[in-house]
Amino acid sequence: METEQPAWNVMLETCPSRTSLAKIANKWTAMIVIALSDGPARFGGIRQRVDGITGKVLTSTLRDLERDGVVVRTAYAEMPPRVEYELTPLGQTLRAPLIALGTWAEQHIEQVLQARSAFDQRVGR
Amino acid sequence: METEQPAWNVMLETCPSRTSLAKIANKWTAMIVIALSDGPARFGGIRQRVDGITGKVLTSTLRDLERDGVVVRTAYAEMPPRVEYELTPLGQTLRAPLIALGTWAEQHIEQVLQARSAFDQRVGR
Repeated sequence: METEQPAWNVMLETCPSRTSLAKIANKWTAMIVIALSDGPARFGGIRQRVDGITGKVLTSTLRDLERDGVVVRTAYAEMPPRVEYELTPLGQTLRAPLIALGTWAEQHIEQVLQARSAFDQRVGR
Repeated sequence: METEQPAWNVMLETCPSRTSLAKIANKWTAMIVIALSDGPARFGGIRQRVDGITGKVLTSTLRDLERDGVVVRTAYAEMPPRVEYELTPLGQTLRAPLIALGTWAEQHIEQVLQARSAFDQRVGR
């Protein structure tokens, strides 16, 4: 009897898919993918759309997303040089689930705020 | 002319919906919501399903989710006492987008792993 190839399973700590979930289930990833949903953008343009992100976090998140094949970085040989970031076809498939999370947060924030104040009263915060 | 009530917008740092996005766009939240998707569970049961989570992270994430109205904690007056966690109706609406993220990670991990090794070769890691 052959050993069966186990299915990928994010619930298992040692499954590689867990490392991918960790990258995509992240607020900065969500906002960067949302920012790139309308098309390619430059570093400064993304930074402007993702209000409050630091240059350091944007640099490292873009690099992680490039490494995972979600974003492609293109340097144009122009003067002055121009660098653009864009979702790859793989990255495009992340648009729907990540936009859904952003929309969820916007649509349910009033309920969440009510729950928070009820909780804080209950525990006497 | 009246001042219009601004819409909630996760892309704005000061918008309360950003704090909600930060909680839900998180790998532990995703896995806990997936673990609770089949129904109520006890602390130990969730910890078993979310392989690799520490007791400390599970405690604080469950508390955050309870505070945001996503999870309800019920203590049954039994001997020995029993405590169960369950998705609220609000939490149920998070199942689809978070399960979608987990499924994405599982379905695309081979592409992601290929992208990673191509990137690492390119940058000479």
